Amino acid sequence: MHFDTVIRNGTVVTASDSFVSDVGIKDGRIVALATDLRDADEVIDATGLFVLPGGIDSHVHLDQPSGEGIVMADDFDSGTRSAAIGGNSSVLAFCMQEKGQSLREALKVYHGKAEGKCHIDVSFHLVVTDPTVEVLGQELPALVEAGYTSLKVFMTYEGLRLRDDEILATLDTARRTGALVMVHCENEDAIRYLIGRHEEEGKFAPKYHATTRPVAAEREATHRALSLAEIVDVPIVIVHVSNREAMEEIRRARQRGQKIAGETCPQYLMLTADDLDLEGLDGAKFVCSPPPRDKPSQDACWEGLEQGVFDLFSSDHCPFRFDDPEGKLNEKGKRHFRWIPNGIPGVATRLPILFSEGVMKGRININRFVAVTSTNHAKLYGMYPQKGTIAIGSDADIALWDPRKQLTLTNEMLQHGADYTPYEGLAVTGWPVRLLVRGKTVMDQGSIVRAAEGRYLSRKRSALSTAPA
Amino acid sequence: MHFDTVIRNGTVVTASDSFVSDVGIKDGRIVALATDLRDADEVIDATGLFVLPGGIDSHVHLDQPSGEGIVMADDFDSGTRSAAIGGNSSVLAFCMQEKGQSLREALKVYHGKAEGKCHIDVSFHLVVTDPTVEVLGQELPALVEAGYTSLKVFMTYEGLRLRDDEILATLDTARRTGALVMVHCENEDAIRYLIGRHEEEGKFAPKYHATTRPVAAEREATHRALSLAEIVDVPIVIVHVSNREAMEEIRRARQRGQKIAGETCPQYLMLTADDLDLEGLDGAKFVCSPPPRDKPSQDACWEGLEQGVFDLFSSDHCPFRFDDPEGKLNEKGKRHFRWIPNGIPGVATRLPILFSEGVMKGRININRFVAVTSTNHAKLYGMYPQKGTIAIGSDADIALWDPRKQLTLTNEMLQHGADYTPYEGLAVTGWPVRLLVRGKTVMDQGSIVRAAEGRYLSRKRSALSTAPA
Amino acid sequence: MHFDTVIRNGTVVTASDSFVSDVGIKDGRIVALATDLRDADEVIDATGLFVLPGGIDSHVHLDQPSGEGIVMADDFDSGTRSAAIGGNSSVLAFCMQEKGQSLREALKVYHGKAEGKCHIDVSFHLVVTDPTVEVLGQELPALVEAGYTSLKVFMTYEGLRLRDDEILATLDTARRTGALVMVHCENEDAIRYLIGRHEEEGKFAPKYHATTRPVAAEREATHRALSLAEIVDVPIVIVHVSNREAMEEIRRARQRGQKIAGETCPQYLMLTADDLDLEGLDGAKFVCSPPPRDKPSQDACWEGLEQGVFDLFSSDHCPFRFDDPEGKLNEKGKRHFRWIPNGIPGVATRLPILFSEGVMKGRININRFVAVTSTNHAKLYGMYPQKGTIAIGSDADIALWDPRKQLTLTNEMLQHGADYTPYEGLAVTGWPVRLLVRGKTVMDQGSIVRAAEGRYLSRKRSALSTAPA
Amino acid sequence: MHFDTVIRNGTVVTASDSFVSDVGIKDGRIVALATDLRDADEVIDATGLFVLPGGIDSHVHLDQPSGEGIVMADDFDSGTRSAAIGGNSSVLAFCMQEKGQSLREALKVYHGKAEGKCHIDVSFHLVVTDPTVEVLGQELPALVEAGYTSLKVFMTYEGLRLRDDEILATLDTARRTGALVMVHCENEDAIRYLIGRHEEEGKFAPKYHATTRPVAAEREATHRALSLAEIVDVPIVIVHVSNREAMEEIRRARQRGQKIAGETCPQYLMLTADDLDLEGLDGAKFVCSPPPRDKPSQDACWEGLEQGVFDLFSSDHCPFRFDDPEGKLNEKGKRHFRWIPNGIPGVATRLPILFSEGVMKGRININRFVAVTSTNHAKLYGMYPQKGTIAIGSDADIALWDPRKQLTLTNEMLQHGADYTPYEGLAVTGWPVRLLVRGKTVMDQGSIVRAAEGRYLSRKRSALSTAPA
Repeated sequence: MHFDTVIRNGTVVTASDSFVSDVGIKDGRIVALATDLRDADEVIDATGLFVLPGGIDSHVHLDQPSGEGIVMADDFDSGTRSAAIGGNSSVLAFCMQEKGQSLREALKVYHGKAEGKCHIDVSFHLVVTDPTVEVLGQELPALVEAGYTSLKVFMTYEGLRLRDDEILATLDTARRTGALVMVHCENEDAIRYLIGRHEEEGKFAPKYHATTRPVAAEREATHRALSLAEIVDVPIVIVHVSNREAMEEIRRARQRGQKIAGETCPQYLMLTADDLDLEGLDGAKFVCSPPPRDKPSQDACWEGLEQGVFDLFSSDHCPFRFDDPEGKLNEKGKRHFRWIPNGIPGVATRLPILFSEGVMKGRININRFVAVTSTNHAKLYGMYPQKGTIAIGSDADIALWDPRKQLTLTNEMLQHGADYTPYEGLAVTGWPVRLLVRGKTVMDQGSIVRAAEGRYLSRKRSALSTAPA
Repeated sequence: MHFDTVIRNGTVVTASDSFVSDVGIKDGRIVALATDLRDADEVIDATGLFVLPGGIDSHVHLDQPSGEGIVMADDFDSGTRSAAIGGNSSVLAFCMQEKGQSLREALKVYHGKAEGKCHIDVSFHLVVTDPTVEVLGQELPALVEAGYTSLKVFMTYEGLRLRDDEILATLDTARRTGALVMVHCENEDAIRYLIGRHEEEGKFAPKYHATTRPVAAEREATHRALSLAEIVDVPIVIVHVSNREAMEEIRRARQRGQKIAGETCPQYLMLTADDLDLEGLDGAKFVCSPPPRDKPSQDACWEGLEQGVFDLFSSDHCPFRFDDPEGKLNEKGKRHFRWIPNGIPGVATRLPILFSEGVMKGRININRFVAVTSTNHAKLYGMYPQKGTIAIGSDADIALWDPRKQLTLTNEMLQHGADYTPYEGLAVTGWPVRLLVRGKTVMDQGSIVRAAEGRYLSRKRSALSTAPA
Repeated sequence: MHFDTVIRNGTVVTASDSFVSDVGIKDGRIVALATDLRDADEVIDATGLFVLPGGIDSHVHLDQPSGEGIVMADDFDSGTRSAAIGGNSSVLAFCMQEKGQSLREALKVYHGKAEGKCHIDVSFHLVVTDPTVEVLGQELPALVEAGYTSLKVFMTYEGLRLRDDEILATLDTARRTGALVMVHCENEDAIRYLIGRHEEEGKFAPKYHATTRPVAAEREATHRALSLAEIVDVPIVIVHVSNREAMEEIRRARQRGQKIAGETCPQYLMLTADDLDLEGLDGAKFVCSPPPRDKPSQDACWEGLEQGVFDLFSSDHCPFRFDDPEGKLNEKGKRHFRWIPNGIPGVATRLPILFSEGVMKGRININRFVAVTSTNHAKLYGMYPQKGTIAIGSDADIALWDPRKQLTLTNEMLQHGADYTPYEGLAVTGWPVRLLVRGKTVMDQGSIVRAAEGRYLSRKRSALSTAPA
Repeated sequence: MHFDTVIRNGTVVTASDSFVSDVGIKDGRIVALATDLRDADEVIDATGLFVLPGGIDSHVHLDQPSGEGIVMADDFDSGTRSAAIGGNSSVLAFCMQEKGQSLREALKVYHGKAEGKCHIDVSFHLVVTDPTVEVLGQELPALVEAGYTSLKVFMTYEGLRLRDDEILATLDTARRTGALVMVHCENEDAIRYLIGRHEEEGKFAPKYHATTRPVAAEREATHRALSLAEIVDVPIVIVHVSNREAMEEIRRARQRGQKIAGETCPQYLMLTADDLDLEGLDGAKFVCSPPPRDKPSQDACWEGLEQGVFDLFSSDHCPFRFDDPEGKLNEKGKRHFRWIPNGIPGVATRLPILFSEGVMKGRININRFVAVTSTNHAKLYGMYPQKGTIAIGSDADIALWDPRKQLTLTNEMLQHGADYTPYEGLAVTGWPVRLLVRGKTVMDQGSIVRAAEGRYLSRKRSALSTAPA
């Protein structure tokens, strides 16, 4: 057979296997795994490299409004560019419904934002903020059929949060349609109560972002979301879990027989609430929700990655500029932590951090790395086997990793819109040196080498909601 | 010393001790425990009897409106009469705030209902249904100071339920004032969701009351209430716990360091959801919330009584007539379980059932019986040491129990306003043969022998919220 | 490339992936996965079939003495024949050290038993029954280096059981050498105590085998084994787990940070203690240790397979003849359950049962099936990637499964030495129709089609005891 | 009535109640609780004082040989003297069976040691170290009948430890006779293994006593003891629990339905393993088994006292001299921690420490103090209601406590035989200023004021093993 491209002699890794093989690519898809494939237009030598499925980051915020006129630092151009730098071949961003807006209108807006700008493949989760009878009864079933198979609901943030009855109605629609619902679990009322107490006590610095969003508020909402899902009888995803108590809720739900996916993020492995307590307002750089916790929580999250509490490792990339008056430190944010926009950049650093801290330090093996950074995302969000693995027939979305390359992270190399990274100065071992998307090299040695040809991905239903094999 | 009354030769029992002693009473109080007290106006021979502190039932609904024009079957006359028949010397009833009503207005109404009608001593918990800034900021602190030291909030029942922000605000007032908050834990939205699904499926019989209020809805609300209390940092009481999962939440909260009291009721030891599935509409007799569960749940509740998960054993007496058109089976209730008023009678049967099934069958000892039926109620609700024990200086509220007396329960003997008891025909061993309230015999051999001289009890703060010793 | 064999157009399945592909085989190994491989000596059409890695049964007893002159019903010939019928390409049998015997002597004996008789590939676990200083200090380190990388110790069976100090010494040798230790967890002393009480009460029927080996005896030994491993700091395998309480011990150990593998078997999914209570002595057929438990235990074991408590699904094949005077119902066994040899046949039925009851009924997916029946065995016992997957470079050990084939199990079709199967009459869907071992067809349509060319497998250290990637 | 003694106007405290009352004593027993008792030979003014049941220390080692010729620093004279100084009116010491010795012979020895020397009342637990058929089948049943109703078994210490089969046989005797078995839970083999590893690494300092007896060794033995008791179906006492994991085992056993008592000691609330790491060999002063753990373990033990995991708070008094060549720092102990005798003094400090750190600091209330230091000991070891409370008919064993008295602990004031206290310099608030035993003042203001008239207590069966009320 003649191939468009052959990747020679690398160590191919899937979620279960590792083996030395050539990879033959034709028409953007993987068509052969074998030794000694020769007949190709282009041969890429991967000797000594890992040949991994490109990363899939299923939790990325791009070009969303963030309230109070604050703007995100990444649009789909810079966001997917940075993702590619970090070894990702697909991202799932959010399409945010505004109150009063139909989901189709929201989709129109977000497709418009993405159109022509994406360096890698992209799909949208639908954020439901206004679950009217029309939205749930008419729009959503049609959109799920049309390939928008995942939703997200918030239990926190005024204006976004849903009440329990609204969550139940949304979950019920998911049950009827086979959509998968992601839930941001923090109890908004509890947070508001604590903000009130902090204000009484004159506590306004960034570090109080963490103390007003305690573990109990996350644990409560996590248990509530899981209980509502149990009552409706539908699988859900608990996103960005930050601590052992919330993990324990996931374990308990599974032991009750529920089908639950769990996600954690680099910030919960690498940062703590102490990072919010830096000199001056530097702590604001680390404001995200849920907040980073403490060292035992980090250990717990590592344990959860190793032992399967977490299926997904995502970035929750949500970038703001720090020195921008409409960004992370707007005037109001300087006076009160509650006005600091919640979110940190991370789409480029997710994979290198887990590779270096997880794989190279022996906490997880390379197959588990592939599972939690790519394969499971594809399976849980209906993109498998097109995406998420190296197998015959799959898209040739491939990252070549050099496990010996050593780097010190700087903001500059990440090519995102934010003007800082929380991981500035972190030394990492292992780096994605080349990225192919559908067979074409998009990133090579830290540079984007191709025009923005990313496609929108219509998706099937989640593996969680369908019968096996 | 000369006594008004001496109880001779009985076995005095407290929450920790059992010993044969005479009890000397003067001016309504216990003034001597000794052998061979002689100089008395009245001598009551208690040979072979247990001399117990009178029961305190801290969870009793009397003369409350129940929505839709439905009336409770007991006012303070018949309710306290029945309580006395069953060995109780005090009950704590609810003073229910109506929406828009001040708590003082509500108290005026309920004091009016109780005035002159009570056969035993009475106090009120304040049910907060409209927690306005005035109510929480002004009225409640003053009322707590004035001896109304316990509140109740509902997480279910449309019109009564509070939202999380309201619960937090109420708990915060409790924290500031030292009041103790009782919480009815069931997730209203989840129940409404399930009612909707049942309606779609044409399920309207009484038994569906149980399936629309599943364990998950109780467990969820229990965990939420406990989490909100954790966040506010205030003790609470979880009332009428029906199953192991909710018990587990109490255990977990205590292991987090929270101060929590737990309560269960006879219906969760003796009834199951199957009782709601009787021929015709007889199942309606057993409709209460949370619903009785199953045999393993009964075992769990027994375990909780033995092992200290539960501090309180109360009746949740909430009586309706079955053959009354405005009662348990009103016209709407015949067509749909959701219109059957929630509640069953039980103030008279609480103590005999626990004595017979618990003490006589060896599940708990007589000291634990006294603790969970009397002493703990007094301590937790600020009536101790005036009430709840047999000790020097305490009110002479004393029930004489004959542990050998065997009876078969009939509705008639209970002297309440309801026209049935869920325990009709139950054989019990052990019965309260005489009751003294503040030294005066109120009930003797199943008859009320004295005019209604019960007093209203102003209460101190709970032992849970105060320092020891 | 020219292939010896090509398997055309089947659905290749690994522990993480499923995809339609041809499989190219050369010199006994898989050398190509691709569409449209043509140039081959032999082409096997697999359209509509699953192309799975051959099953690896890592818990099989063959040709062992069983005390009291009782003989096992399978030698390496019939045992591996039956294994092949059931879709297995490798089995790991036990090399049992006798008291006073060196391990090398034992190996000589077992290699002698296996030599020339094996229809599929075989390796030995070393059963340590006499852990002398020589055995642990000299022999074992050398044998581990030589590829005998797994041991087994017993906490039950007089004559086999080790004391805690012996287990600790054995685990310590494992720690020093990188060997992996399997532990049979039941408390022998507790069982002996209960047998004594049963004898006092005249209880001798087969069903009392189950009541003298209660869950508590298994849970205790499981926790003890895990604690000893924690203290030594070494991974272990808990074999043949039968119930939720023992599972819970594994979960707890992992949450303490221990590296633990867990195994369950078909008997704990399909049988219960009631099966031991059949008419006459038929219950004896189901005597194995630990005994099958009850329905909730079965549910727990299914849950453990789905959720990852168990990594391994093995048969614990241990066959006896029922009508043989030296077998399952010897004269002593007829009089007292304790003389019934412990064990049931199962090497042929393991895969079809899990395929039918697990995959076809939707409890686990086909990837999980491959993981727990093949891949994980290879990884945990040091045979990966030579065995346990379909990947470039791996041995061409392949089972072709027809997921639509329906069969009713009979003893006859299993071709083992036992004269019964506990699953007689069970209807299954899905069946292995062809088996290749190192590229050669060994079994086709239920018949062994090739001479016994199975090889002995020298093994590497376990994935549990080595660093990742 | 005329009294021998009246204690006037103190606050009488029981395990459940607190009330101001006079206490009338006649013939060594409490005969009246009342206000204004006047007619007495002796009146003791207790205004402002607590009138508590005298402490019962049910875990005290006196005059035992300790192996290798090492002698305990207290005989029954100095030991009970020190106990009285610390507010105790009874102690339960151990009668240690030697290998080959009958229990009756051992009793003869220990009765001889105690005879005429005891300042307070005393009883013996029988330590079973040689559970022969005669001992278990003949002697023990007769001795239990004769009032020796509690046994102790060791799972650690070479020469004392029993094997599982011996423990089972002993528990079975307990089941048949109604005796209560105390278990010292540490896995001897695991400890020996760790000592071996420490020796390899040249670790001989006192602090390695702690690292060779890790939590896992205690947790393992605790779970094993509880499991054996479950299998035999008999209650047991887990003594001197030091950490959360062992506590968790007790909780789990109770949730399985077992009747279990739990005990902790002052060293687990007040000391940590760091205390063993003092300059030079001072750490040896803190060597006891299990060893003190860490701060979170202390918190856990406090939680267990508050929440009922522990029923008993005992001293495990086991005194050695530090500067004695045959004591804590014998020649061998200086070279290797394993020769340092295990045990610390504490019979005098137990009550003041818990009073000061527990009651005065608000962790437990005064009723709980009485329960865990006196009443529960009496009930669990068959001395109730003779001992352990202030009630009509009980022995007048009474400690008067001054809750305002502030002291700094010094070894000198404790009047024991050891030449140090681990609590030297600890400031305490609250102190027992007078002690009555059977109505006679034995200790007053820190001095023993009466000859040694303590009696031996024959005991009934434990409340744990008998039916209620």
